[in-house]
Amino acid sequence: MRIEFIKMHGLGNDFVVLDAREKPLPLIDAAVASALANRHTGIGCDQLIVLEPSSAADFRMRIFNPDGSEVEACGNATRAVGLLHGKPARIETLGGILEARPADAGISVEMGQPRFAWEAIPLAYAMDTHSMPLAWEELVNPIAVNVGNPHAIFFVADPYAIDMDRLGPLIENDPVFPERVNVNVAAVTARDAITLRVWERGAGLTRACGTGACATAIGAMKRGLVDRTVTVTLPGGPLTIAWREDDVIVMSGPATESFRGSFAADAFGLTQAAAGEVTA
Amino acid sequence: MRIEFIKMHGLGNDFVVLDAREKPLPLIDAAVASALANRHTGIGCDQLIVLEPSSAADFRMRIFNPDGSEVEACGNATRAVGLLHGKPARIETLGGILEARPADAGISVEMGQPRFAWEAIPLAYAMDTHSMPLAWEELVNPIAVNVGNPHAIFFVADPYAIDMDRLGPLIENDPVFPERVNVNVAAVTARDAITLRVWERGAGLTRACGTGACATAIGAMKRGLVDRTVTVTLPGGPLTIAWREDDVIVMSGPATESFRGSFAADAFGLTQAAAGEVTA
Repeated sequence: MRIEFIKMHGLGNDFVVLDAREKPLPLIDAAVASALANRHTGIGCDQLIVLEPSSAADFRMRIFNPDGSEVEACGNATRAVGLLHGKPARIETLGGILEARPADAGISVEMGQPRFAWEAIPLAYAMDTHSMPLAWEELVNPIAVNVGNPHAIFFVADPYAIDMDRLGPLIENDPVFPERVNVNVAAVTARDAITLRVWERGAGLTRACGTGACATAIGAMKRGLVDRTVTVTLPGGPLTIAWREDDVIVMSGPATESFRGSFAADAFGLTQAAAGEVTA
Repeated sequence: MRIEFIKMHGLGNDFVVLDAREKPLPLIDAAVASALANRHTGIGCDQLIVLEPSSAADFRMRIFNPDGSEVEACGNATRAVGLLHGKPARIETLGGILEARPADAGISVEMGQPRFAWEAIPLAYAMDTHSMPLAWEELVNPIAVNVGNPHAIFFVADPYAIDMDRLGPLIENDPVFPERVNVNVAAVTARDAITLRVWERGAGLTRACGTGACATAIGAMKRGLVDRTVTVTLPGGPLTIAWREDDVIVMSGPATESFRGSFAADAFGLTQAAAGEVTA
């Protein structure tokens, strides 16, 4: 049996998409996700996306890291899947239901409402999340926001002057963040412009983190540093983030299909029937 | 226009193969090779392989690095292309004509005859290539062999104890090697077994270098350290190298097809007609 896939990327954050909306696929476990994500012997990707039927939305999107762990939300992946769908879509994820639609800047995704309560980040104990009374060397007093996944945002003069390879893992794994955290270092350069680097939980420095762009824009808006629509420039390119009056975050940016292909199912361990599938 | 490709690997050394044997492709220049080789926004590979018609052999194989430079020879790529052809093939390369055929261990490739003359390596000046009177810290007296491309082989107690990230580029770029050199550090563990790490010219440490395995096996045979058939174990896995009585090197090992697919030609800059192609 051959299995078809689509390879896509959003600002260089790249995905293998398997579409099981019409026809179920064999079981995708950690070993399969890892084999497919391998850049030398597999297809290669930052995340594996599996689309499945949903009773709560138009379809369900599951997101797997190369280590097989499942991710709650990924803004870049949602734009890519929105491009694939070709029309407005409500997408069920572990981080909630997201809406995607074609837009001038590529694809717009409704990313839900930000949460600021310390239990919602989550933090290990009660604390002011608007300016956390903590410091990791020159990185001080972050604002914490949950936008489907947890973020700490530090506003600095020059994000590229920060030694993220050293400080990123230190903050990510600090016990104050019981589910770890994505670490954002950002510079506000105008009322509508932010420069951002993100140390992603479990992935390290990436060229574009969609939820990091959302969390950082919301953090800057909450502190009154920028207006309600802002362009966030990541190493991979720009995303536009708007915080609507109804409290919903809208992220707009490009998504690209790189190529399409197929592989032999048994070569990547896709041999077991999926859960719930009737086997003959 | 969509262009079809095959993604393959030999011991994790991975290739995108474009087949222009029957139907010419648009011009592949450095920019196109680089765009296709990009692992996030392209297809992703160590080398891009283009198959073309040949008047001297069954077909011609061109090998492009991600920087667009063309490589003379690549044993892993030859095995992959041999697997694709499915029957014995004579393949024209910049390093000479290579023969590939299905074998028990996967694919066997005739890699031509080794050359030991100092001008053939090439070296900058006359020198004993059997034991070069040179030292780079603990790496001393290499044997130099050209097997389509230039190699220096150092026999050491433990290849994994050598700081190749530091010594590799030092030796690769030493003026004694006017065309630079591939740096092999090897341990002979039995009369038929070698452990090898290779610092590849222009690529750094790789998990499997086919020509490095050939050059190292030949070097060990020439020094009387091993028999005429030897298994060379690289980080990516084993290759079997035989030095036949007619002086031809035969390398045998696995090759694997990972997936097949197609991409939009204009998305990767494949827009110009190929040289010699009649445009309407």
